[in-house]
Amino acid sequence: MTAQPPLTPFQQRASDAVREVQAAICAGLEAVEREAGSDARFLSDEWTRSAGGGGLTRILQGDVIEKGGVATSLVFGELTPAFAAQLPGTGTNFFATGVSLVLHPRNPFVPTVHANFRYIEHGPKRWVGGGADLTPYYFFPEDKQHFHGVWQRYCDEHPGIGDYERFREWCERYFHLKHRGEHRGVGGIFFDNVNVDEAQPGHEDRLLGFIRDGGMRFLDAYLPILQRRAGTSYGPEQRRWQELRRGRYVEFNLLYDRGTTFGLKTGGRTESILMSLPPVVQWGYCVEPDPGSPEHDLLVELRRPVPADEPSSLAH
Amino acid sequence: MTAQPPLTPFQQRASDAVREVQAAICAGLEAVEREAGSDARFLSDEWTRSAGGGGLTRILQGDVIEKGGVATSLVFGELTPAFAAQLPGTGTNFFATGVSLVLHPRNPFVPTVHANFRYIEHGPKRWVGGGADLTPYYFFPEDKQHFHGVWQRYCDEHPGIGDYERFREWCERYFHLKHRGEHRGVGGIFFDNVNVDEAQPGHEDRLLGFIRDGGMRFLDAYLPILQRRAGTSYGPEQRRWQELRRGRYVEFNLLYDRGTTFGLKTGGRTESILMSLPPVVQWGYCVEPDPGSPEHDLLVELRRPVPADEPSSLAH
Repeated sequence: MTAQPPLTPFQQRASDAVREVQAAICAGLEAVEREAGSDARFLSDEWTRSAGGGGLTRILQGDVIEKGGVATSLVFGELTPAFAAQLPGTGTNFFATGVSLVLHPRNPFVPTVHANFRYIEHGPKRWVGGGADLTPYYFFPEDKQHFHGVWQRYCDEHPGIGDYERFREWCERYFHLKHRGEHRGVGGIFFDNVNVDEAQPGHEDRLLGFIRDGGMRFLDAYLPILQRRAGTSYGPEQRRWQELRRGRYVEFNLLYDRGTTFGLKTGGRTESILMSLPPVVQWGYCVEPDPGSPEHDLLVELRRPVPADEPSSLAH
Repeated sequence: MTAQPPLTPFQQRASDAVREVQAAICAGLEAVEREAGSDARFLSDEWTRSAGGGGLTRILQGDVIEKGGVATSLVFGELTPAFAAQLPGTGTNFFATGVSLVLHPRNPFVPTVHANFRYIEHGPKRWVGGGADLTPYYFFPEDKQHFHGVWQRYCDEHPGIGDYERFREWCERYFHLKHRGEHRGVGGIFFDNVNVDEAQPGHEDRLLGFIRDGGMRFLDAYLPILQRRAGTSYGPEQRRWQELRRGRYVEFNLLYDRGTTFGLKTGGRTESILMSLPPVVQWGYCVEPDPGSPEHDLLVELRRPVPADEPSSLAH
């Protein structure tokens, strides 16, 4: 561990906020396991990044959540000039802290879920990024509606930062498997490089509040769906369908997800990055469910059109 | 299906050769299934490429080979100028035909294997590429030795084209998971953009002979290993180890393999490209076998050093 410069007071607050979110989410999920009669608890794996910072990876292998990871990281130091040039801001010095999670439940009727909220400083610029998206194995419109509803209210309650319609469309474009012509799931929100007018007082607090609040809403967005579906009985056929669909999750994360591919190719901590991969996965050959089956109903939802590119998002 | 221009006589011979290799390999693997008392046979899936050409994907879901694919393709037409510029030759017109296979056996003591042999024309240039590599779940030095021995003899018998030392090192560099610090397996041979002096008579025949012979050697390289290991008894622990290690195979193919990522991102036939993915896969978190265990012995082999870059290979 190299000697590390002290964080600014604001950086410390941002770091505390993501740790607080992590603790709240892990506690909520452990309560779900307890209610199901399981004594599964999160493991804690604290790691240090030699170039500056580190993280806390927490892993749950439970009865309800077959495999889940909730990770925080705080990284700072020097960017390569090539990477720095792709970001807002100037210079090569940066700071980033965030929380990210992926939960793979055991019951095929409970959706997989991902969420991620991060705060970044580079040169004089600061911004936030993140989002949440839901990946069911069986499609229930009311689950999609509930999930979106939480994130819509969240965006509406942060005017000037949150923009539900824009973030929802961004999510539709981002979590899309082009080679399959399928969305990863039923969507949610996705945003990156979002900032506020830095001339306004309290602009940093507004960014941090948005991130912190996003993390704190996660359980409201997910637990009602989990609780509604976790008691549904299933057999080997539903389980096989879930494992096949999890293959799509792997394909997305390894082929397209910027965080995953960038992290792995630039020396990030492999096990923390790949905690997102499902515990048991299958690949078949040309598996296509019968029209009219519940499995096919999911595909109809996943094969919905992709919104056209938003030209202005490229300018961020 | 669009009207397609006739192949040149040599292109037809190349296409016939790869189909002949495919038929021989499939027949050999079906014989293995029969000997094991299984009536599993290869399915045949013939497909057409709207821009020119098509292929025959053959899939085996057997008792010995849990999932295997042996595919041929013949594609021609126009390259994008950007892609054409990365290849030897000039213009945007191209022709390519080849055979590729991946076999995932059920028994964890039988290695997974991949092989691929292809012939390509672009502008006035023609060349061959391919190779074969072995991915065991338990390390037996004599299996590695046998596999390499077959490919060494193959290279030696094609002087001026085959170059075992060079192709072996190329394989070591290519099938390497940088983010894991692990080789995919025990190696083999890998080569690309290999050609011969086009002023010499019979140069096309020499290239085609190399490719055809590579395909025809495959069963000699693999079947003795399969037959030696297929009777080894195993339990759930060995099976779990195999499924975890298959995760590395997925990681390699989706993160690094040029054929896979290029094919998926440029509109190749998804199910034929991803026939390489294993049938059942697991991901754990920080799974590390005990020192001295057979599982750990494999990791010691896979963590061998990577040879330094060969500057001249960049010039090909």
